[in-house]
Amino acid sequence: MQKVNVAKKILSANEEYAFKNILILTEHKTLCLNMISSPGSGKTTILTRTINELKDQIKIGVIEGDIQTDIDAEKIRATKAPVVQINTDGACHLSAAQVNKALKNLPISELDLIFIENVGNLVCPSAFELGEAGKIVVLSVAEGDDKPAKYPVIFAKSKVLLINKIDLLNAEALVDFDIERVEADARKLNKGIEIFPISAKTGEGITNWYNWLIKSVKKSSV
Amino acid sequence: MQKVNVAKKILSANEEYAFKNILILTEHKTLCLNMISSPGSGKTTILTRTINELKDQIKIGVIEGDIQTDIDAEKIRATKAPVVQINTDGACHLSAAQVNKALKNLPISELDLIFIENVGNLVCPSAFELGEAGKIVVLSVAEGDDKPAKYPVIFAKSKVLLINKIDLLNAEALVDFDIERVEADARKLNKGIEIFPISAKTGEGITNWYNWLIKSVKKSSV
Repeated sequence: MQKVNVAKKILSANEEYAFKNILILTEHKTLCLNMISSPGSGKTTILTRTINELKDQIKIGVIEGDIQTDIDAEKIRATKAPVVQINTDGACHLSAAQVNKALKNLPISELDLIFIENVGNLVCPSAFELGEAGKIVVLSVAEGDDKPAKYPVIFAKSKVLLINKIDLLNAEALVDFDIERVEADARKLNKGIEIFPISAKTGEGITNWYNWLIKSVKKSSV
Repeated sequence: MQKVNVAKKILSANEEYAFKNILILTEHKTLCLNMISSPGSGKTTILTRTINELKDQIKIGVIEGDIQTDIDAEKIRATKAPVVQINTDGACHLSAAQVNKALKNLPISELDLIFIENVGNLVCPSAFELGEAGKIVVLSVAEGDDKPAKYPVIFAKSKVLLINKIDLLNAEALVDFDIERVEADARKLNKGIEIFPISAKTGEGITNWYNWLIKSVKKSSV
């Protein structure tokens, strides 16, 4: 009797769609970044600020992944950027097939950059390639500085680590968070990772992130 | 050809072990609570403070679930409470079989209460019953007040919602978080849910949580 490896089969179907997405994105020279974090680390706030402040330089679209509700998509819509909502109906991550469908509902040929905002989850989305050019992991300082050690996969796989909510570190040391520990732990897992401490709320440090984005968009457009 | 529903099969195997766990816990009249939250909401800090401050009243043991590392188990060990570490090796939730094995390595007959600290994940652990008497969901105010709306399942299934890190709400309004919205959204999903706003760091509000625990341990010991 032949054994069927179900987990592997599902992954392969996902990879097939991921490959289709890569082809579509490459054809249009559109950079695609998959943003992953725990719930509440600030992905949507980072995106709305980035879209608003770079709108004269980069044309950005968003694929918004949520288990249910379109709370985040509404916030993106307010920036006037094109956005497609995916509701996973309970699933803990986006799949490449869902992204494939969403891509068909975005004006890709007009876009320099597509952000995929994944479901809030530091574990599962890291196992599913969506066809993106890179993953962006977001960690809020309120989550603690042991997270790269405890959830290593996503830190090992990401191009960029955004350490968000650094405004909480300034006033009265309300949050204990050792940025150097996080940077060292992340670089142990991933030598090439770019790390930008930012506050999407106050704008502190965010220019470094913008510069990286502008440079990366230029690279993928040639 | 017969179709096999794999997802259902896995759930049933889990439920079998969950049932075994219920039998063991009931036999020893030991209350078991399954603590679930995003990474970094403060589960371990809540547990260490609770164990230290209630050690003369309640005998507490801990099953510590992590993808890898024993960073959290070490913190629990420092309280002298018995603790068993489960490393899930990448899996995003604890299973009832893992808890069954862990229960055999705890001195259950000496314990009034066993906390299971699940893997940091607001989505997946809510789908796997472990044989616990109740789930405790923890939400840090830094995660934002839209979380019950966006991740409803765990709020619908929990006996208690601990709103943690309320110390961040006091000073200079660094964090925007509408406690009333969270309470209303959680009660819409779950009429009977007990809600305790606390700071595991400063101790603010934590007596309400202790009183609920003491009352619940008394109920399960008769």
